[in-house]
Amino acid sequence: MKIIGIDPGTALMGVGILEKVGNKLKVISYEAISTPKITKEQRLKLIFQNLNSIITKEQPELVAVEELFFSKNVKTAISVGEARGVALLVAALNNLPVIEIKPVEVKNIVTGYGHAPKFQVEYMITKLLGLKEPPKPDDVADALAIAYAGLIKLGGSV
Amino acid sequence: MKIIGIDPGTALMGVGILEKVGNKLKVISYEAISTPKITKEQRLKLIFQNLNSIITKEQPELVAVEELFFSKNVKTAISVGEARGVALLVAALNNLPVIEIKPVEVKNIVTGYGHAPKFQVEYMITKLLGLKEPPKPDDVADALAIAYAGLIKLGGSV
Repeated sequence: MKIIGIDPGTALMGVGILEKVGNKLKVISYEAISTPKITKEQRLKLIFQNLNSIITKEQPELVAVEELFFSKNVKTAISVGEARGVALLVAALNNLPVIEIKPVEVKNIVTGYGHAPKFQVEYMITKLLGLKEPPKPDDVADALAIAYAGLIKLGGSV
Repeated sequence: MKIIGIDPGTALMGVGILEKVGNKLKVISYEAISTPKITKEQRLKLIFQNLNSIITKEQPELVAVEELFFSKNVKTAISVGEARGVALLVAALNNLPVIEIKPVEVKNIVTGYGHAPKFQVEYMITKLLGLKEPPKPDDVADALAIAYAGLIKLGGSV
């Protein structure tokens, strides 16, 4: 099972791909799609094209995204929603099923505590995946955590 | 100048196309893209495909959307954001410039009052465009109002 975790954002979109073969977990790739300060619609186009290229290259079987983003700032929520809409569209255009996981569930699976701070998620995902260095920026660590939680949710322990 | 106004939503997306030739305003078409209760990503795919078809057919030169959506409900804001992201993406993929207009400005232009209720926007856009019946549902009236306000903002009176 090859899964792509996505942490959506218009300026920066975290992407992480993991594969589970038998009971072995393999880190395929992770990166941040970052967009320059152009118009929002041009940023969304770049995200669309980059995400499409990654999926065409890596051929994941499943897309994992967080179910809900809580924010007191409606402007931020809309902006995340826009990037999220493009990510979900890319999944649908590639005929990939989408699994949505609550942020609290991702944190719970990765750190054992549903309200863990960001640094703890980063620390634990580095450990769990046996990475030499913490994935940077946060968005990439989050994307890997989402992919990891997606695998656990689907197939039990890894 | 041919403009397409879009009122984004995942279940229902209002679309209205207006054309200004000289000082004559022409209503080209208006419709609601409605999606059945399938997965969200499949809904976004349908919106993407339908909006693309409309733009390919009608060849507008400009896309108008509302700048910000205010909501106390973050879930609604994210959902609108997702549909909005797909609409902006379609604009960018078709190399169309996007004009964003604040809701208060749309209402002000169409009704003379920035905080006018929905029924007033519907009533006035019906009058202004010389339509025989109010465009339904609300999302379509809103899309036409956004397109109308976009034309005014760009080129003065119509």
